[in-house]
Amino acid sequence: METLSENRAFGGVQGVYSHASAETGTEMTFSAYVPPHDEGAKLPVLWYLSGLTCTHANVTDKGDYRSACAEHGVIFIAPDTSPRGENVPDDEAYDFGQGAGFYVDATKDPWAKTYRMRSYIESELPALIAEHFPAADMTRQGITGHSMGGHGALTVALRNPDRFKSVSAFAPIVSPLHCPWGEKALGGYLGPDRDTWREYDACALIDGGAKLANLLVDQGTADDFLKDQLKTGLLALACKKAGIPAQIRMQEGYDHSYYFISTFMADHVKWHAERMLGG
Amino acid sequence: METLSENRAFGGVQGVYSHASAETGTEMTFSAYVPPHDEGAKLPVLWYLSGLTCTHANVTDKGDYRSACAEHGVIFIAPDTSPRGENVPDDEAYDFGQGAGFYVDATKDPWAKTYRMRSYIESELPALIAEHFPAADMTRQGITGHSMGGHGALTVALRNPDRFKSVSAFAPIVSPLHCPWGEKALGGYLGPDRDTWREYDACALIDGGAKLANLLVDQGTADDFLKDQLKTGLLALACKKAGIPAQIRMQEGYDHSYYFISTFMADHVKWHAERMLGG
Repeated sequence: METLSENRAFGGVQGVYSHASAETGTEMTFSAYVPPHDEGAKLPVLWYLSGLTCTHANVTDKGDYRSACAEHGVIFIAPDTSPRGENVPDDEAYDFGQGAGFYVDATKDPWAKTYRMRSYIESELPALIAEHFPAADMTRQGITGHSMGGHGALTVALRNPDRFKSVSAFAPIVSPLHCPWGEKALGGYLGPDRDTWREYDACALIDGGAKLANLLVDQGTADDFLKDQLKTGLLALACKKAGIPAQIRMQEGYDHSYYFISTFMADHVKWHAERMLGG
Repeated sequence: METLSENRAFGGVQGVYSHASAETGTEMTFSAYVPPHDEGAKLPVLWYLSGLTCTHANVTDKGDYRSACAEHGVIFIAPDTSPRGENVPDDEAYDFGQGAGFYVDATKDPWAKTYRMRSYIESELPALIAEHFPAADMTRQGITGHSMGGHGALTVALRNPDRFKSVSAFAPIVSPLHCPWGEKALGGYLGPDRDTWREYDACALIDGGAKLANLLVDQGTADDFLKDQLKTGLLALACKKAGIPAQIRMQEGYDHSYYFISTFMADHVKWHAERMLGG
């Protein structure tokens, strides 16, 4: 693991790191904020998965999470959204290829070799964090994310119910099976058999019996993507049917930007901290 | 005035606006955050002047000020750091020309016609704010800034003692007369007569009898520019000699970045709010 930068912030350290990923076969970059803590203390770990076109940098710059993480003693990890580099297959669209990995393990060429973001997020990066951040308590993890990253957070958590004590999302894509972004991405990475998409669809996973102990979602009512892409109502319905206690908050007048995310970030960090520390 | 963007944030509106400036002869861009407030309420106005290479966007993205401004009911205005455009004289260095206006009215060609940031900040932009933001209470203003913008905040306030109820700075250039950045900029914009520089030098203004009712400065000890460019000690000395009550806090381990600024931003907003609202 290579340190690209470390800066003191809110009494802790905001770092940006890179490492050679075995899953993607590329150099991967992520950011990690470690709040101030006593020597030897173990701190819960909150994952934040980013949306389309983003890298680790968007939330690191604009997410306003450090104040709340310092207050509650939470480590905050922000991975990239896809493999990157000249030798990595790409597409000129913003919603497919680099910057749009959709947190899947691709099975179709030319994507299958490098687009392994599911395994990267579920296995490789957690192991790296556990190894290099002695303060990280991997028995107390939470996960959140925005848009495509909200989809990532929900599906990673639904497939790994024992790993996360808390799950939340900002304006998540709740059902890739039922929106243009999802159909394009899953069709491209996994091929036309829609049954193979279901493990990457939060609503389908819930319908199939996957459980979450709790869920917090914030969604802006002025979000241009709400109606055609995000479809928050489908998640509310799936949770209701399955008896999953979900707090889905429609936030009046908020859009899809980091102005929205940062507004509710401290709330989410606190919500996760209560569940990660209480469990 | 043209609205470039408006986004709901922390219950208020983060806007970015542009207007044709009579002072600079160019289109100028600035950001303004107006927190949630009751209809007809009048709110204090905090100015933030940015540092070298920055536009309004750096603090708007990375400043973490909206939470505190919403809590305390403060309008936050972030102007650009120079005129810009193809027809505006420039220099390839990062510390002179576009992005480096130093908040002076230039007297030397080719800069004199467009580099009028002193008059822009002291007169033109406040009048525009008063006209277009009915919630802005121009009788209650404070000013802060970072690095070159800290220099700007201090010198604008020292020359206009009746306008500001509170003044603070993050890692300010305290004496352009005594550092390479300042000598280059003031020499270039004003010419070699160093006497003409004194109205753009916080320490010289204080030595000449200018007063501040109060002053808060945060400065990181790990700031690479502290020793040769910022020289915080000169300001402490000038304030002490002049009997100006200055709180100058050396912050252990912090550098010159927005990680530093954002860490202490809420503190500054609160400090200004107390003074703007109390007066």
